Amino acid sequence: MSNPSLLILAGDGIGPEVMNEVKKIIGWYGEKRDLAFDVEEDLVGGIAFDTHGTPLTDATMEKAQNADAVLLGAVGGPKYDTLDFSQKPERGLLRLRKEMDLYANLRPAQCFDALADFSSLKRDVVAGLDIVIVRELTSGVYFGEPRGVHKEGNERVGINTQRYTESEIARVARSAFELARRRNNKVCSMEKANVMESGVLWRDVVTEIHQAEYPDVELSHMYADAGAMQLCRWPKQFDVIVTDNLFGDLLSDAAAMLTGSLGMLPSASLGAPMANGRPKALYEPVHGSAPDIAGQGKANPIACILSFAMALRYSFDQGAEAERLEKAVEKVLADGLRTGDLLGPEGGSPISTAEMGDAILAAL
Amino acid sequence: MSNPSLLILAGDGIGPEVMNEVKKIIGWYGEKRDLAFDVEEDLVGGIAFDTHGTPLTDATMEKAQNADAVLLGAVGGPKYDTLDFSQKPERGLLRLRKEMDLYANLRPAQCFDALADFSSLKRDVVAGLDIVIVRELTSGVYFGEPRGVHKEGNERVGINTQRYTESEIARVARSAFELARRRNNKVCSMEKANVMESGVLWRDVVTEIHQAEYPDVELSHMYADAGAMQLCRWPKQFDVIVTDNLFGDLLSDAAAMLTGSLGMLPSASLGAPMANGRPKALYEPVHGSAPDIAGQGKANPIACILSFAMALRYSFDQGAEAERLEKAVEKVLADGLRTGDLLGPEGGSPISTAEMGDAILAAL
Ligand SMILES: CC(C)[C@H](C(=O)O)[C@@H](O)C(=O)O
Ligand SMILES: CC(C)[C@H](C(=O)O)[C@@H](O)C(=O)O
Repeated sequence: MSNPSLLILAGDGIGPEVMNEVKKIIGWYGEKRDLAFDVEEDLVGGIAFDTHGTPLTDATMEKAQNADAVLLGAVGGPKYDTLDFSQKPERGLLRLRKEMDLYANLRPAQCFDALADFSSLKRDVVAGLDIVIVRELTSGVYFGEPRGVHKEGNERVGINTQRYTESEIARVARSAFELARRRNNKVCSMEKANVMESGVLWRDVVTEIHQAEYPDVELSHMYADAGAMQLCRWPKQFDVIVTDNLFGDLLSDAAAMLTGSLGMLPSASLGAPMANGRPKALYEPVHGSAPDIAGQGKANPIACILSFAMALRYSFDQGAEAERLEKAVEKVLADGLRTGDLLGPEGGSPISTAEMGDAILAAL
Repeated sequence: MSNPSLLILAGDGIGPEVMNEVKKIIGWYGEKRDLAFDVEEDLVGGIAFDTHGTPLTDATMEKAQNADAVLLGAVGGPKYDTLDFSQKPERGLLRLRKEMDLYANLRPAQCFDALADFSSLKRDVVAGLDIVIVRELTSGVYFGEPRGVHKEGNERVGINTQRYTESEIARVARSAFELARRRNNKVCSMEKANVMESGVLWRDVVTEIHQAEYPDVELSHMYADAGAMQLCRWPKQFDVIVTDNLFGDLLSDAAAMLTGSLGMLPSASLGAPMANGRPKALYEPVHGSAPDIAGQGKANPIACILSFAMALRYSFDQGAEAERLEKAVEKVLADGLRTGDLLGPEGGSPISTAEMGDAILAAL
């Protein structure tokens, strides 16, 4: 039997640097744990635009469709700010999400004990925090039509459309309920049903799926603005949060920042099962391309490494190996090793991207 | 000359309780400072629906249009959750905002020194915080058409439309730049121009207004998800933030919570100047109707009282009197007086809504 396949799309900014460390880890699993992967690499984002004139070629899209899992670094940078909307680096990522139909984006917001003091929040508010935001990723205002900027009289008008179908809501709700069952059995659904009809439908469908299929899970609803507040006030009240594409974008970033561990947080974007039973899947760090520190060996590779751990768990059914990797990361942090982003105002001496990767390898 | 007119719409939940304290303050200004107002009261939200079958009657709308300023308490409550969308309490508030054309919603997020320890954030992150979010309030996904839930085949589909015209963006940008000039001269504009064309137009128009009319103000742009992060990480980097209706809803609530002073934060919603030179204006606390504590005399009236202070400043050109009121609030807090929401986990003995109002009166 052939090895499972990984497509690596390192992307822009710090993407290639952090992905380098992941490649070492992948190599280690092949050598030491008999878990070899067929790895292919390709381009996405600004670098793809520079090379091919498009942020994602059809050939790369095809490879992604056929890979057992895609690992992505980051896309975007100021260099591409003036590009036309359709050619922006982000469009490459959005095309992957849409065409692979990766509707459930799992974003854990976890506070690593060794880093609890690094949060801008008080220690007791975040220590031990472990919640997951399940963000709908293939629909909503990111993809709805009509969209664009046009002229009306002598004014420009900008339009986007928030659009959700019943089945789009139902499937991501199921993902959230399934996940909650494997955790603390609590789901909080967030929308603005008080002002948006798409939010009314969201609330209705989540409630129906809950009653029909997951009555054992505790379900609550919250307006997204109140959700943003409660995340800042007492995030530990949550277990699994399910929300739409745009709210999920803001809320998961806020949640990530709360943990004080932005450079640490992975994500998994999952779709329907393929013929081999594995879900379509893309794994990427929550952080962006950080152009300000790109190419300097300063970036924290942990979010990208933990994204690979999520791949082990969700795509390759290797929960124990995923835990091994997560434990190695915890050990290195407990030992006091820190990239620059993990140093507080008191300072200290940061280690490089590669040193962090090597330390994790050694801890494995 | 007749007195300036105030329309009081106390609304639902804790609205009437907190507004009661404001009425005492208004009375004080009439008696002691020769600043008398003609006050009229009417209904909005759930109470208006209970009485008239609509969250805002045309007659009340008309009074609001003619008042020199509207003071609003809060709307909404679980009792009304099952009402049809068009009859929900929130529609009353949204109709006021829309028909009075109150496009600039000023939401200060200020950390009161006496309360800095009460935030879930560390003291040094929030102490002295003083930023203002200028939220566009009459357009965007709150009001765009088409909207609603309809059937397509045998599925329900929920739709809302994010729509901004050039002039809608330009006028709220001007409000933000004007405000910044009276503060620390810095504006940060937030959108998702990387994924939404309406955000591209937003960024373009804000940039154009800046270059043509306010080149002296420092302008930066941030994606709204990064903005949510940065608000949680180091909010003091901002002075004035300008953003759209929906992003403003989430970001201002998050910012309010950060200060630890949610029950303290006022807001002003301003429109174009009326014939008498005063802007159309509505003032309301940022907090909601808090149905869980309604009717118990526990609510904190400070946000509503400080909203009246904003009315003194923005509608009646009484900046010195506004400051007098704000100083009285600070004094009462410095004296250690606390409603229940302002007590930390250590507890202490809370005073009632009326006691807080009376203490502020006494401090005046
Ligand atoms: C890069 C951008 C298109 C993306 C998004 O808005 O979804 C990012 O912010 C994210 O959260 O993954
Ligand atoms: C009550 C609701 C309609 C309102 C909004 O969404 O604008 C509230 O959350 C606010 O921020 O003023």
